[in-house]
Amino acid sequence: MKEVKVTASKPYSVLIGAGIMKDFKALCGDIISGKKLAVITDDTVDGLYFEKLGLDGALKFVFPHGEESKNMNTLSDILEFLADNNFTRSDVLIALGGGVVGDITGFAAAVYMRGINYIQVPTTLLAMVDSSVGGKCAVDLHHGKNLAGSFHQPKRVICDTSALETLPDEMYKAGMAEVIKYGVLSGINLDSDIETLVFDCVSVKADIVRSDEFDNGTRQLLNLGHTPAHGIEALSSYTVPHGFAVAAGMGIIARASVKNGFCSKETADKVIGILEENGLPCDTEYNYEKIAEVAMRDKKAKGDKLTLVLIEKYGKCILHEINKKDFAEFISVK
Amino acid sequence: MKEVKVTASKPYSVLIGAGIMKDFKALCGDIISGKKLAVITDDTVDGLYFEKLGLDGALKFVFPHGEESKNMNTLSDILEFLADNNFTRSDVLIALGGGVVGDITGFAAAVYMRGINYIQVPTTLLAMVDSSVGGKCAVDLHHGKNLAGSFHQPKRVICDTSALETLPDEMYKAGMAEVIKYGVLSGINLDSDIETLVFDCVSVKADIVRSDEFDNGTRQLLNLGHTPAHGIEALSSYTVPHGFAVAAGMGIIARASVKNGFCSKETADKVIGILEENGLPCDTEYNYEKIAEVAMRDKKAKGDKLTLVLIEKYGKCILHEINKKDFAEFISVK
Repeated sequence: MKEVKVTASKPYSVLIGAGIMKDFKALCGDIISGKKLAVITDDTVDGLYFEKLGLDGALKFVFPHGEESKNMNTLSDILEFLADNNFTRSDVLIALGGGVVGDITGFAAAVYMRGINYIQVPTTLLAMVDSSVGGKCAVDLHHGKNLAGSFHQPKRVICDTSALETLPDEMYKAGMAEVIKYGVLSGINLDSDIETLVFDCVSVKADIVRSDEFDNGTRQLLNLGHTPAHGIEALSSYTVPHGFAVAAGMGIIARASVKNGFCSKETADKVIGILEENGLPCDTEYNYEKIAEVAMRDKKAKGDKLTLVLIEKYGKCILHEINKKDFAEFISVK
Repeated sequence: MKEVKVTASKPYSVLIGAGIMKDFKALCGDIISGKKLAVITDDTVDGLYFEKLGLDGALKFVFPHGEESKNMNTLSDILEFLADNNFTRSDVLIALGGGVVGDITGFAAAVYMRGINYIQVPTTLLAMVDSSVGGKCAVDLHHGKNLAGSFHQPKRVICDTSALETLPDEMYKAGMAEVIKYGVLSGINLDSDIETLVFDCVSVKADIVRSDEFDNGTRQLLNLGHTPAHGIEALSSYTVPHGFAVAAGMGIIARASVKNGFCSKETADKVIGILEENGLPCDTEYNYEKIAEVAMRDKKAKGDKLTLVLIEKYGKCILHEINKKDFAEFISVK
């Protein structure tokens, strides 16, 4: 088992290992002992993993899987469920599932009685390397993804890499897009075993979160590929999975970084090659003008400006501010 | 015009004066200049004061007045309204109204895109001296009041004491209950003019918030009278207004403080006398056992313990922890 210590406003540990979910009670005893527990999960993960946690007597709230559940109604239902069960400020939520479960459980924990403890138990690669660490949580509004949320750090994160064995191939690939992102950002070795790979990704994320917990500066590096990705996702009405959109976004940014003189063609080719080796897209059929138009509504946009993450070389990226109106031209290399 | 500086995690000013609402643009120019604005208000206050702000071009979201609106549905509607109008992270909400408006607007500002700026423009005495300062915001769940919320400080608070002239007598009295609370807590002079009175109350609250923004210790002093009040409110199905319940709660606590040896009978009589002079109740017809039973579900209760605010003398209160099971006996002096 490996451990990453995240030193945010409240420090916590990310524990990574194969089969560690069955040791949940021992690994989290200091947090859950004597507390009322509620496991929040979806109807897919419930059947696969709830029993593994060995939490007899825990409350359980199960909602339908999928992004469609990540909304204010589900949040409201979870909060009412906790209140109906006399959950107090000192009790603990457990998020068992992928990004949707983690995001909505974190948000519920952030606002129930103005903040209670929660533990993340991510069961997808994407959630392990990305959403379960760092404390960003949110739900979608009709108008866009993740538009309502909080910063609320978990008390612990339990990454059982055995859970990835049940992950459908497409979801594993989608997770690899975020793993590759950490490679481009920090040069981690992508050929490691899965436990090391998750450890390396979480370590990079922990470093970035430590330096900018509330996402005002360097944390934006984690958005590599995400600005065009948001456009692609929206244009597809969210039928393109997040990881695939991020992969395409990284390809677009790689080529734009060459075009605008930030990196060599060799660097871009390397990034694109890695994406292709992993069965991921490095471009999209959507019109770049339209991608730019939609992406500019991103919640990080400030007034007329947009901060992009560009590639300097494999293992080093930078933040670069451009005028919103120049974005389509900036990425157009077709 | 008077000013109180609140030094919470983010410092801000509370401006107090008669007729200052019409100077809103000048008083908040540094915050609102060049930003998109949305005024959140209820259908009573809208007609009385929206025009006074002189914010042509501001968006406006109006919901039905009353505690029934303070729920997750209204919150959700406000968030969707902001997203539909392409509100960004750098835009500003303005809460124009009483405690319900302030609480829900603060919560919406706390979670929209994980936090945007907002300005409080309280129009009731209760909101001016209590809920608009300190950053606590919340909505009710089916199971109880203020069960979902955040800590999110406003950027400025504009207390136009002229607004109190339109306040129904009962609501003014309810506000006076909280004013008297500050008298019992800190000995402020209750015979001052209204501008000074609001200034003094906000100053006391600012001192307490500075020392304990996130309500883990001394901030609980502000709950003087509130533990029995929560019981009274719930037993009345919230037909007893908050201020009246707090007044009755202070009377109950005053007598309990004498009974349990924390203060003299003279002190309790003084507190009760002030409540009566102001046309406020100092007791309730509800059974103390039942009050205790309901009040113990308070969200500040931790396990088997309950922290009460007791009176030592007029102008000095203390926190005192008791076992939940002893609460009914503790307050029973009938």
